[in-house]
Amino acid sequence: MRQRPQIPTVEYRPGVVRLLDQTRLPLEEVVHESRDLDTLIDAIRRLVVRGAPAIGVAAAHGAVLALERRLDRGETGDLLDQGLRKDLSALRAARPTAVNLMWAVDRMSSLMDRTQAEELVQAWREEAARIQAEDVELCRRMGEHGAALLPDPSVILTHCNTGALATAGIGTALGVVRAAVDAGKRVRAYADETRPLLQGARLTAWELQRMGVEVEVLADSAAASLLRDKKIDAVLVGSDRIAANGDVANKIGTYPLAVMARRHGVPFYVVAPTSTVDLQVANGDAIAIESRDPSEIHSLGGVRTTPEGVGAYNPAFDLTPAELVDAIITETGVLRPPYASALA
Amino acid sequence: MRQRPQIPTVEYRPGVVRLLDQTRLPLEEVVHESRDLDTLIDAIRRLVVRGAPAIGVAAAHGAVLALERRLDRGETGDLLDQGLRKDLSALRAARPTAVNLMWAVDRMSSLMDRTQAEELVQAWREEAARIQAEDVELCRRMGEHGAALLPDPSVILTHCNTGALATAGIGTALGVVRAAVDAGKRVRAYADETRPLLQGARLTAWELQRMGVEVEVLADSAAASLLRDKKIDAVLVGSDRIAANGDVANKIGTYPLAVMARRHGVPFYVVAPTSTVDLQVANGDAIAIESRDPSEIHSLGGVRTTPEGVGAYNPAFDLTPAELVDAIITETGVLRPPYASALA
Repeated sequence: MRQRPQIPTVEYRPGVVRLLDQTRLPLEEVVHESRDLDTLIDAIRRLVVRGAPAIGVAAAHGAVLALERRLDRGETGDLLDQGLRKDLSALRAARPTAVNLMWAVDRMSSLMDRTQAEELVQAWREEAARIQAEDVELCRRMGEHGAALLPDPSVILTHCNTGALATAGIGTALGVVRAAVDAGKRVRAYADETRPLLQGARLTAWELQRMGVEVEVLADSAAASLLRDKKIDAVLVGSDRIAANGDVANKIGTYPLAVMARRHGVPFYVVAPTSTVDLQVANGDAIAIESRDPSEIHSLGGVRTTPEGVGAYNPAFDLTPAELVDAIITETGVLRPPYASALA
Repeated sequence: MRQRPQIPTVEYRPGVVRLLDQTRLPLEEVVHESRDLDTLIDAIRRLVVRGAPAIGVAAAHGAVLALERRLDRGETGDLLDQGLRKDLSALRAARPTAVNLMWAVDRMSSLMDRTQAEELVQAWREEAARIQAEDVELCRRMGEHGAALLPDPSVILTHCNTGALATAGIGTALGVVRAAVDAGKRVRAYADETRPLLQGARLTAWELQRMGVEVEVLADSAAASLLRDKKIDAVLVGSDRIAANGDVANKIGTYPLAVMARRHGVPFYVVAPTSTVDLQVANGDAIAIESRDPSEIHSLGGVRTTPEGVGAYNPAFDLTPAELVDAIITETGVLRPPYASALA
């Protein structure tokens, strides 16, 4: 039962970025191929690839792809340089909230002082591969630190998808489950379905099932009753950006989950690599929250659910104040409040 | 713009109970006809008709239908009497949480001492019509009391559907909006989509649009951000049963909504007729909460969303403790805490 997805979440091959198309899961396992930057940016926007760390890895490979295409067209010197800067800007703007995207683009950007195009190709290919390999290792360490916090047996509740599909490795919050299972702990899981795009129902349930972990899916609004009535040992979530004071931006629905967990005395853990921490923003209010298209609310699986002409309020993320977070689990260890000093 | 649905929510014609099929809205306006009790009970279970008051009205007409069918078959005396008692039990058991169903069946049951079948037919037809007419009047009065609480202009947030589709009249919580609009107040609305069956997205949005009220639909999990970020003047919800201490059973997702409203200082109002109050249960923990079929979580609009073999946690209702309710608006007026004395 315990098998990794056969298709990697993100994979670079010369001239092409291959993504496991997450909009088609769990019904179909299909590879999406980007041979130019526009296709990849569109894929990031449409959530063909999603999850803050995976977006970062995909963006790094995207920079390589952009460079390869410009060299194919014979661009050199200033033309190449200006084109690449435009490409990196476009990549940065693909999605506004996940800071790992900006962080990965910045790493690529910092190598642009290479004078020879051939040197830059080599440097970027290596850097993208390094970002990917590092993420595997970060996930492993977060999993190890987090798994130590889970009792045996454990019942956990999670939101959205934070597993192998959201990273290059075993995942963040779901990586903790994976590490606990691999360490021989008995874990059962509840997965919020995570409207509007159902990453929990579609992706987390799929990953847990492949891990051999028993999982029940629930409507997001049922989590409050679950926390009230059942023995839940921990709530585990990921993050798209963490402010300097420990406020957490994550998938819409995380904030009420944290409030309900605190109300019912259930530990609420955020699992994220330190690349998710943005010391440039003092607190959550300074984090840009992406508003996504109303169509995500108006229909599901191609079936219209609301009447025509009705509006929608569709923020993709919300902000959880630091005081509701019992620990932030990073690759460097388990951070406890006050987070301002711990994160700095 | 302001028009009532042309098809009544529940309508009795000799030999047939006609329901506006709410599983088909808003895409299609189709009438569902029950000519025997089994068909009607199945319709109640499948939410062809839903909303605690509307279920009560449908059940009253269902009793008449059952009696007519038994008389058609020539049943008399003890055979008829025992058959009808079985029918009323089946009706009571159609759904476990909404107390209006039990209340309506009890009203019909209390008339069974009529000795002549012809007398009973007449008495039941009149009682069912009375229950329906009373509900129209209850809604009108709740609307009046509730509308007085809304500032002008108002922005409200509501959950599930509590309008003309949930009652025989203008509704409970949504009836308050209707009454406020009819009184000339300017009201804008946000409607939680209300997973799993999307009564908010499908039905509330449809009703508000027909009322000429501007409405935005949101994922249930986005309500917390909405309450944090936007000026919401009131949260208005209905109820399926209210315990003697004021604890409220209502659609799954009501409890976290009440917690978030309190956290952000937004008044949380429950709108329900006194027939919803069950003085037999001391507090919410004694209210039976219906668990519905996992398929409601596993697929949407016929499209499978979770992998095969995954479980589901699917309670249809949750419990909101009385201390989170700022007022209970009934036909007799606006009740304020402590509710134990006010409800008694």
